[in-house]
Amino acid sequence: QGILERLDAGEIVIGDGGFVFALEKRGYVKAGPWTPEATVEHPEAVRQLHREFLRAGSNVLQTFTFYASEDKLENRGNYVAEKISCQKVNEAACDIAREVANEGDALVAGGVSQTPSYLSCKDKTEVKAAFQKQLEVFMKKNVDFLIAEYFEHVEEAVWAVEVLKESGKPVAATMCIGPEGDMHGVSPGQCAVQLVKAGASIVGVNCHFDPETSVETVRLMKEGLQAAKLKAHLMCQPLAFHTPDCGKQGFIDLPEFPFGLEPRIATRWDIQKYARKAYDLGVRFIGGCCGFEPYHIRAIAEELAPERGFLPEASEKHGSWGDNLSMHTKPWVRARARKEYWENLKPASGRPYCPCMSKPDGWGVTKGAKELMQQKEATTEQQLKELFQKKF
Amino acid sequence: QGILERLDAGEIVIGDGGFVFALEKRGYVKAGPWTPEATVEHPEAVRQLHREFLRAGSNVLQTFTFYASEDKLENRGNYVAEKISCQKVNEAACDIAREVANEGDALVAGGVSQTPSYLSCKDKTEVKAAFQKQLEVFMKKNVDFLIAEYFEHVEEAVWAVEVLKESGKPVAATMCIGPEGDMHGVSPGQCAVQLVKAGASIVGVNCHFDPETSVETVRLMKEGLQAAKLKAHLMCQPLAFHTPDCGKQGFIDLPEFPFGLEPRIATRWDIQKYARKAYDLGVRFIGGCCGFEPYHIRAIAEELAPERGFLPEASEKHGSWGDNLSMHTKPWVRARARKEYWENLKPASGRPYCPCMSKPDGWGVTKGAKELMQQKEATTEQQLKELFQKKF
Amino acid sequence: QGILERLDAGEIVIGDGGFVFALEKRGYVKAGPWTPEATVEHPEAVRQLHREFLRAGSNVLQTFTFYASEDKLENRGNYVAEKISCQKVNEAACDIAREVANEGDALVAGGVSQTPSYLSCKDKTEVKAAFQKQLEVFMKKNVDFLIAEYFEHVEEAVWAVEVLKESGKPVAATMCIGPEGDMHGVSPGQCAVQLVKAGASIVGVNCHFDPETSVETVRLMKEGLQAAKLKAHLMCQPLAFHTPDCGKQGFIDLPEFPFGLEPRIATRWDIQKYARKAYDLGVRFIGGCCGFEPYHIRAIAEELAPERGFLPEASEKHGSWGDNLSMHTKPWVRARARKEYWENLKPASGRPYCPCMSKPDGWGVTKGAKELMQQKEATTEQQLKELFQKKF
Amino acid sequence: QGILERLDAGEIVIGDGGFVFALEKRGYVKAGPWTPEATVEHPEAVRQLHREFLRAGSNVLQTFTFYASEDKLENRGNYVAEKISCQKVNEAACDIAREVANEGDALVAGGVSQTPSYLSCKDKTEVKAAFQKQLEVFMKKNVDFLIAEYFEHVEEAVWAVEVLKESGKPVAATMCIGPEGDMHGVSPGQCAVQLVKAGASIVGVNCHFDPETSVETVRLMKEGLQAAKLKAHLMCQPLAFHTPDCGKQGFIDLPEFPFGLEPRIATRWDIQKYARKAYDLGVRFIGGCCGFEPYHIRAIAEELAPERGFLPEASEKHGSWGDNLSMHTKPWVRARARKEYWENLKPASGRPYCPCMSKPDGWGVTKGAKELMQQKEATTEQQLKELFQKKF
Repeated sequence: QGILERLDAGEIVIGDGGFVFALEKRGYVKAGPWTPEATVEHPEAVRQLHREFLRAGSNVLQTFTFYASEDKLENRGNYVAEKISCQKVNEAACDIAREVANEGDALVAGGVSQTPSYLSCKDKTEVKAAFQKQLEVFMKKNVDFLIAEYFEHVEEAVWAVEVLKESGKPVAATMCIGPEGDMHGVSPGQCAVQLVKAGASIVGVNCHFDPETSVETVRLMKEGLQAAKLKAHLMCQPLAFHTPDCGKQGFIDLPEFPFGLEPRIATRWDIQKYARKAYDLGVRFIGGCCGFEPYHIRAIAEELAPERGFLPEASEKHGSWGDNLSMHTKPWVRARARKEYWENLKPASGRPYCPCMSKPDGWGVTKGAKELMQQKEATTEQQLKELFQKKF
Repeated sequence: QGILERLDAGEIVIGDGGFVFALEKRGYVKAGPWTPEATVEHPEAVRQLHREFLRAGSNVLQTFTFYASEDKLENRGNYVAEKISCQKVNEAACDIAREVANEGDALVAGGVSQTPSYLSCKDKTEVKAAFQKQLEVFMKKNVDFLIAEYFEHVEEAVWAVEVLKESGKPVAATMCIGPEGDMHGVSPGQCAVQLVKAGASIVGVNCHFDPETSVETVRLMKEGLQAAKLKAHLMCQPLAFHTPDCGKQGFIDLPEFPFGLEPRIATRWDIQKYARKAYDLGVRFIGGCCGFEPYHIRAIAEELAPERGFLPEASEKHGSWGDNLSMHTKPWVRARARKEYWENLKPASGRPYCPCMSKPDGWGVTKGAKELMQQKEATTEQQLKELFQKKF
Repeated sequence: QGILERLDAGEIVIGDGGFVFALEKRGYVKAGPWTPEATVEHPEAVRQLHREFLRAGSNVLQTFTFYASEDKLENRGNYVAEKISCQKVNEAACDIAREVANEGDALVAGGVSQTPSYLSCKDKTEVKAAFQKQLEVFMKKNVDFLIAEYFEHVEEAVWAVEVLKESGKPVAATMCIGPEGDMHGVSPGQCAVQLVKAGASIVGVNCHFDPETSVETVRLMKEGLQAAKLKAHLMCQPLAFHTPDCGKQGFIDLPEFPFGLEPRIATRWDIQKYARKAYDLGVRFIGGCCGFEPYHIRAIAEELAPERGFLPEASEKHGSWGDNLSMHTKPWVRARARKEYWENLKPASGRPYCPCMSKPDGWGVTKGAKELMQQKEATTEQQLKELFQKKF
Repeated sequence: QGILERLDAGEIVIGDGGFVFALEKRGYVKAGPWTPEATVEHPEAVRQLHREFLRAGSNVLQTFTFYASEDKLENRGNYVAEKISCQKVNEAACDIAREVANEGDALVAGGVSQTPSYLSCKDKTEVKAAFQKQLEVFMKKNVDFLIAEYFEHVEEAVWAVEVLKESGKPVAATMCIGPEGDMHGVSPGQCAVQLVKAGASIVGVNCHFDPETSVETVRLMKEGLQAAKLKAHLMCQPLAFHTPDCGKQGFIDLPEFPFGLEPRIATRWDIQKYARKAYDLGVRFIGGCCGFEPYHIRAIAEELAPERGFLPEASEKHGSWGDNLSMHTKPWVRARARKEYWENLKPASGRPYCPCMSKPDGWGVTKGAKELMQQKEATTEQQLKELFQKKF
C-alpha cells in the first residue's frame, strides 16, 4: 500500500531519523557541507543505518539525498574526497534505500531539499532544474513517493512541489520553520496553504526546532488549512534536541551548533511525549530529523503501540518504560523499572559550570551582517569573519 | 607488532568505544542484561560498529564479549531471544573483530569481565572456570592479547588475570572504580599493585566514571605502582558521560542511569581535553567505554595527532576544531571555525527545568538495604522494592 | 514641586522599594497577611526603612498602608498581635513618611491597594467605601499625591481612582499585571485607557513580575494610550526577582513564593539595566516593589545619574560599577572594578541540585480548582487542600 | 550570666548576623574597604540592625568594630567621608551595642579582626599594638567578652588572643578558613589547638564559606582538639551564601564577589538545616556572618526552639515552616503551609542563562601573581591589572 492509502486509512506512519547527524558521528559525513556522498563512498554504513531505522519501526525510508542537488555538491566539491557525480550519489541512495525497504514493509521516499541556487537568487527556472535533475533519478529508480523537505522559504518549497508533482507520485512537503514562519515572514498557516495548493498531499515541518516547538508549528499549519478549508495529512519530523532558546532561524544559530549539542539530546521518554502530542494533534506521519537515532524512532513506535497494535522488531531488545531493569542486582535500580519514574525524571546534566539556555548568535546578527556588507566595510570573507569576531 | 611492543616503543595505542551502549541505541542490545548475543543474532551491526571505531582511529578492537561468561548468559537467559550458547557468542565475537581488524592495522583483544558467580559468592575455582571457558575460545581464535575489564572487586580481577596469564598472551586489566577504590575498600594504588603482581602488563580503569575522575584514579594507580617500585603500562577507558556527582559505585547509582543520561554526554572537545590529560599523565593506552561513539574515539586520535604524526581515516570527514565550518553561509557560524570557540564553549542543556547535579541513589542506600534485609523486614523482592520506594 | 510639575518638566522621579518583603526579613511583617501594623507597633523600623530609601535616591515615599483597608485588617485580625484600628495604622504611616520626607526633598504618596471586599464580590459602593476611609486619613494628613496600586482587576482599580480623584490631588494607578492583562482578560493597553479615563495622571504596573516583563507590560500600556490618543505619565515598580517562568498571575504562583525566592533576587546591575530600559521607553516614574532593597533603588539613581546630573546620598558609600574594588589587596578582585565585568557577569547560584525555572502552580490549577468546587467534591477547606495536594 | 556560664550550663547561644553586608545594602558601608565608620556617621542605622538581630533571637551583639583597627582605618582613609578617629568609631560601636543589648537579655562582645599590619609583614609587637588599642576601648566600655574573628592566618589569630586574654575577659576566636586550613597550610585541627593553647575558651570559624562547609571545618577543629585532649566550646558563624565552588580562600575569589552574590543567598530553610547540623555536631554558639539578615538568625532560633523551649520575639511575625500561608486565598499557596514542602523545595533561580557553579579566580592565580611579580614583569598596579585581565 502506498503512503496515501495508509494515511487515508487512518494508519500511523512512522518516519525515520536524521542521517547527516548520525553518520557524522559515525565518521561518514562532514559537518558544514553535510553532503551525502557516503552513499557512494561507504554504502555499507548508509545501509546499516537504514536497517536500524527499519528495525526501530520506520515505515518510510528516505533516500539519503539531502543536499544532493548538483549545485550543492559542486559548491561543496572541495569537501568531496574524490569527485562523485550528483547522479551517482542519488542513484546509489535509491538503491540502498530500496534494498533495505525490501527487508521489511517500508516505503522508499525520494527527497529534495533547499538549494544554493535559490539562496543565491537564481531564477525559478534554474532552481526548478535542480529539482528536476534529482527527480529524474527518483523516477528511474521508481521510489514510492516524494518529499520536499528542509525549506526555509515557502517560495522555493512551492517550486519544488510543483516539479515533484508532475511525476504523478504523491508529494509530501515540510519546511524547517518555527511558529514565526518562514524567512520572508510567511506564517506557518500560510505556508501550509501554499504548499497544499501547489500539490502537496502531506504537509508539515522538519528539522531546526525541538519536538515541542515543531508540534506547535504544525498546529498553526493545521489551523491555517482549516481556515482555508483545505485538507492535507500532517507530518512532523523535528530535531531530537531541546531548543527552547532558539530564535526564528532555529538551532543553526545556537552557539552549540553543531559540535556542542550533546546536552540537548532528547531522551527516549522525551520522544514518547512528543509522539503522543503529535498524535493528539492529528499528525499521522511522525518521524524525526537531526539528532534522531534509531532508539528515538523506536520510542515513537512504542508510545503508539497501543494505537497501532504492534511493537517494532527492535523492541525485542527494549523493555517498555524501563521494565528490563526489573531484574537488576541493585534494588534501587530495579525501582526504576516503571513508567512514573522515567516520566517524571528531570535529568541532570553533570555540567555545573554550564547554563541551561543560550542566546542565539542570530539575534540581531542578520541585521548587523547586512549593515556591514552594505557599508562595504566587509569586502572579503576574511574581513567579514574578523568583523564578526570583533562584534560578537 | 603486538600490544607490548607498541607500548614499549612509546607508541600511543587508541582503544575503542562502548559497545553495549552504542548497540543499545541502535537496537541490538538490551539495557539491563547488557549481554552480547548480537554477535550471533546481528553480526552485521557488530561488524559495522567495529568498522566505525577502526576508521575513527582505534588500534585495538575488543571482542564484543562483555558479560559473555556462561553464568551471566544463563542467568539472563530469559532475555536472549533464542537460546544461544556461550561458546557461539564468544566465537562469533572473535571472528567479527578479526575480520574488521584485518581491514586495517588493529589488534584484536579478547575480553572477560566480572561474573555473577563471584557476586553470588561462588568460590575461586568456580569463578576461574568461567574465565577459563571464555579463554579457550580466545586461544582457539588466536586473539592478539587479553583484557580483564569491568571489575568492581580487585580479588576477582586478580583471579581473572591469573587465568588469562596462563595463556602466555599479554594481559591488560582495568577496574571500574573511582578514586575511593574497589567495593572492598582497596585503594586504586593497591589494586594496581595486586594486578601487576598477578601478571598484568597493563593496568588502569574502565567505565563507571567520567574521563576526569578516571584519569584521577589512574593517577592514584600510578602512584601506588611507583611506591611499590613496580612497572606497568597505564590504560584508561572511561565513560563519555559527565558524572561529577557520582558516589563510590559510579554512574549506575545516578538516577539517570541508564535511560536519562543524554544531557551528560561528552562533546568531542571534552574528549580531546581528556585525551590530553591522560597523555600528560603518561597513559599510553587511551580509549573509552559506555557512551563513547566513533566520533569520540576520533577526537582522541585528533588530539594526539601531533604526537602520533597522523590522523585517522575518519578525519577526512572532520575538520580539526570545527574548521569545516569556515565555508558556512552564515558568518556567525563561520566564526565558530576555531579552536578557542569550542574550547571555551559552555554548552547549554536547553532544559531549564532540570538541575545540573543529582544525588546518587546509592548514597546510604547500600547500608539501608543491608539493614532492611538483616531486620528481615524485606523477605520478598516485591517488599524490598516497596520499602525502597518508600524510603528513597 | 508636586509630582505632576516634576513629571511635566521632564524630571525623572524615583520611587521607593518594597516594604512588606523588606520588613518581613527584618522581622516586622508577617508573610501571608502582609499587613502594615508595624507603623504602630514598631515605627522606628518603618522610619529607618523610609530613611534608607530616601538616602538611596527615592523622590517619593509611599505611606506604608499596603493592605491597610479596614476589611483587610479585620479579615487578618487574628494575625495582629493586639487589635489596632485601621485609622491608627494609616495615620501612623502618614506621620512616619512625612517625618522622613522632610529630612530630604521627597514627596509623600498615600497608597491604597486591592481589597478583600472586591474579591468576595461586594458591590461598588462597599468597595469604594473602603478606599474612602483610607482617603480620609490621607486628606487629614495632607499627603502630596495618591497611588492606587496592586490591582489584579482593572474594574476595582478604576473604582479606586474614582474615589481618590475626588480629593483633587494627583492620582497614579498601577496594576500588578503582566503582558497577558488583568484577571478578567482586559489587555494592558485597555487597562491603561480605562485608568486614564477614570482620572489617573500616571499609569503603569507594580509587583508580580520581574523588571523585564514589567517594562514590556508598560510598553503595551503606552501603545494602548497612543492608539486611544490619550496622554499620561508612565510608571513602573516591578519585583526585584527574576521571574521569566511566571504564568499570568505572577510570582504568587511560583513554587518558591514567598519563602524560597532568594536565588531569583536581582543584582544591582540587573536593576541598572532595568532603569535604562524603562527610561528608554519613556517611563519617568521608576521605582520598585517586592524584593527592592535600598541598594536596588540606589542602582536606579546611579544608572540615571548622567541624565539627572547628581548622585543620591547613599552613593557616597558606593563606587559606580564596582570601582571601589580598585584598591583591593588581591589583584583579581581589583580586576572586577569595571563596568564590563559586572555587565557581563552571569552569576552562578551555587545550587547545582536546583533548576533554573519552575512550573507555576497556577498553570491549569485555577481551572482545576473551579471544577473541583463545582463538582462539590470539595466542601471544606481541608478537603480542598487534600485534593490539591493529591492532584498537584 | 556571662557567655561561659551559659555555655558551660549547656545553653545554646545564638550569635548575630553580618553587619558589613547588611549595611552595605542599606547604604551605610562601602564594599571594598568594609569599614564601620557608620557607628559615628549613622548610629541610628547601626542601632536598628542590632535591634533586628536582638528581636530575631541573638544572645550576643557584637560591637560593629570589624576592620576598625587604626591601621585599617588609616589605610582606607580616603574612603571615610570625614576623618573619624579609630577610637571614636570603636567607642560609638560599644555604646550602640550596649544600648540595644539592654533592651533585651543579650551580651555585648567586643571584636577584633585581621590587620593590614600583619599582612604587610609588620612584626608581632606592632600587630599586637593594633589589637591593644581596640582592647582599651572595649575595657573602658566594659564589654561582656571578646571575639577575635576573621583571621586567615592562625599566627595572627594567636597574637590577637594573647592580647585579648590579658584583659581577664572570656575570649572567643574564629578563623575565616575552610577544611583546607589557614593560608600557611595549618589544618583546622591545628588552628583550634593553637587558639585554645593561646587562651581562647571558644573556637570556631566565621565568614568565607557556606554553612555546610563551615560546619565541616568546625568538625575538623573538634577532632583536632579531641586528639590533643583539649577542651573548648565550639562556635560557627558562616556565610549565608551557597559556595560549594569555593577554593581555599573562600568566597572573595568567586567571580560574583561582592556584587553578584544574590543567587547564592540562603533561604531560611537552608539556615534551619545548618542550625540543626551545627547543633548535632555539638556547636553551641551558633550565628552567622556576611549575608545573614535578621530572618536568617530567626531561622536558627526557630529550628532550635524545641531544645531551647522558647521562640524569639520576631517569631510573632513568622509562622513556623510557612504555616502563616494556611489562610491564603489561593488553595495552591495554602498547600505550601507545611514543613515537607519547604524542606524539599529545590528553588529555581529564574536565570536560565546563568550556570550553577563558578571557577574561583584564585585557582592558580595566587601562584601566577607571585611569578609575575618575581619576574618584575608587573612593576605598576596598572600593568599587573592588565596582565591579569589578559591571563584570566
